[in-house]
Amino acid sequence: MHILSTQHLPVAVIGGGSWATAIIKILSDNHLKELFWWHRDQSAVAFIKKYGHNPKYLSSVPILLPAAHISSDLDYVIAEAEIIILAVPAAFLKGALANCTPATFNGKKVVSAIKGMIPGQNQLIAEYMQTEFHLPGDDFIVLTGPCHAEEVALEKLSYLTIAATDFETGDVFAKHLNNRYIKTVISADVYGTEYSAVLKNVIAIASGICHGLGYGDNFQAVLVSNAIQEIRRFVDKAYPMERDINDSAYLGDLLVTAYSQFSRNRTFGAMLGKGYSVQSAQLEMNMIAEGYSAARAVFELNQVFGVYMPILDAVYNIMYNQAVPAHEIELLTTHLS
Amino acid sequence: MHILSTQHLPVAVIGGGSWATAIIKILSDNHLKELFWWHRDQSAVAFIKKYGHNPKYLSSVPILLPAAHISSDLDYVIAEAEIIILAVPAAFLKGALANCTPATFNGKKVVSAIKGMIPGQNQLIAEYMQTEFHLPGDDFIVLTGPCHAEEVALEKLSYLTIAATDFETGDVFAKHLNNRYIKTVISADVYGTEYSAVLKNVIAIASGICHGLGYGDNFQAVLVSNAIQEIRRFVDKAYPMERDINDSAYLGDLLVTAYSQFSRNRTFGAMLGKGYSVQSAQLEMNMIAEGYSAARAVFELNQVFGVYMPILDAVYNIMYNQAVPAHEIELLTTHLS
Repeated sequence: MHILSTQHLPVAVIGGGSWATAIIKILSDNHLKELFWWHRDQSAVAFIKKYGHNPKYLSSVPILLPAAHISSDLDYVIAEAEIIILAVPAAFLKGALANCTPATFNGKKVVSAIKGMIPGQNQLIAEYMQTEFHLPGDDFIVLTGPCHAEEVALEKLSYLTIAATDFETGDVFAKHLNNRYIKTVISADVYGTEYSAVLKNVIAIASGICHGLGYGDNFQAVLVSNAIQEIRRFVDKAYPMERDINDSAYLGDLLVTAYSQFSRNRTFGAMLGKGYSVQSAQLEMNMIAEGYSAARAVFELNQVFGVYMPILDAVYNIMYNQAVPAHEIELLTTHLS
Repeated sequence: MHILSTQHLPVAVIGGGSWATAIIKILSDNHLKELFWWHRDQSAVAFIKKYGHNPKYLSSVPILLPAAHISSDLDYVIAEAEIIILAVPAAFLKGALANCTPATFNGKKVVSAIKGMIPGQNQLIAEYMQTEFHLPGDDFIVLTGPCHAEEVALEKLSYLTIAATDFETGDVFAKHLNNRYIKTVISADVYGTEYSAVLKNVIAIASGICHGLGYGDNFQAVLVSNAIQEIRRFVDKAYPMERDINDSAYLGDLLVTAYSQFSRNRTFGAMLGKGYSVQSAQLEMNMIAEGYSAARAVFELNQVFGVYMPILDAVYNIMYNQAVPAHEIELLTTHLS
């Protein structure tokens, strides 16, 4: 564990969105000197270097990195770092890492701050990094928890969960995140936290659909109670281990998404509930609702697992089988309790 | 089970608030003919008879009862019924039943729609009805679930849980509630559902305090995740039985309260978080926040049980030990994960 215990831990954050920006803020506030930031977009890099703010996401956050540490050259940024934090949407990860090889990540720790699966491959980020880049399981870390990036920008107290099969790796990384407004929780449940983070986006779509259809708070409470049981059934089957599904990495993460007016997935669902087609809702939003592809990935995986997942099935049918939301949700209500 | 299986089940609803009014609406909509309604307030009785609406609560709901079925004479209303639904605030129950004796309830089923404990006695309604009126356990039913009365008025789909030690009693009662906008769930957990409903009001106060202090949605998700674990620990200790704390009667009921802007308990807490004293918040609200007395009752009970309940303790200290909310909640954050 030599790498991780050094005071000058070099870290690279891969991605230019709001969650990546929030992570940059946390690590900068914690006086991490060797902090590098990769953006795909060269003009964003130039803007940040010039004005010290991300132009599109969390633009109120001052970015205090040296200009040389912000780059659209992925090889350079990764080469400089010992911990690589992946924070691009899952749908863009393959593209972002297209020129990487197993050697790229050799000897490094990789942290996934992504809440989604690799489209078309139905793989978690942990699985993808292992199969594609031969990353040892003990070098992989999940960064999750109930956390709107916007509240990190406001320095509102937030709890992050660090899941790692190697406790010390997780613990050292967690220590770099802790500060006045960030508390960390250590977990050994790499796959369960990843699956749960993926599934909660599907549930948020369901929550949005129901809201769009006119269902109220009484029903939302029933939906979310059934949803966390559905998530528990799935993760307990997909990756059996001792876990408490009511820990904040699972239930909390679901709550912060399903009860948020700001969740893209919930907004996407609400548009479907109000009568938009899937295609027009996607066009209108002009953003990635991770739950859309997650619904297909988990549905396909579940053809093997065979877990009872009525909420997932309803979302899948609406997304991919042209089911009418009002009918599909009415059917769903007979499966809830 | 002769009484309950009759088509003309005579039911009395005791209480004039919004939840009582919602129950009257459900049973009326289900064409229950023998439905009686007790209000303490004679002028409310006169108003309803004249105008067909409850003057103060859910006043949009048309009340279609025969005039003779609405009364402030408790003896008359109870004598007419075979099922007595108690729907007054817990703090007023003893007063409402002051002239009742065990004979009053002899041979009747009593349903508690109350979410609170008898102040000063730290008793659940089930316990109070047993000790005070010798009501057999099998004649007692809990009516609970995540349910804002306001949404029942709007006929938004809601799930109610009916808990009874005698399954058939619960089942028959449940059948009288089911309709287009009400679905029922049967449970055997009389005490656990009662305790959970009591505790969720304490949690809602905590949630309000944190909101008032400026904590955000990320923290609320952590608070609620920890809260449901705290509720589970308590009910599993106080009344051990097989239960899934994520069922809608427990988790759903917590969610609908803790995430509601309309919860009196949450509003009360928010005033404390914003700097009101306990006394001035109570004066200002001019309403009963059930969680206020519930915090004391469960805290005192827990001196025997010894369950780890950091959220309850924090609320208790703020309510009764003049703890400063900002300090007490900051201390609480170190106990959450």
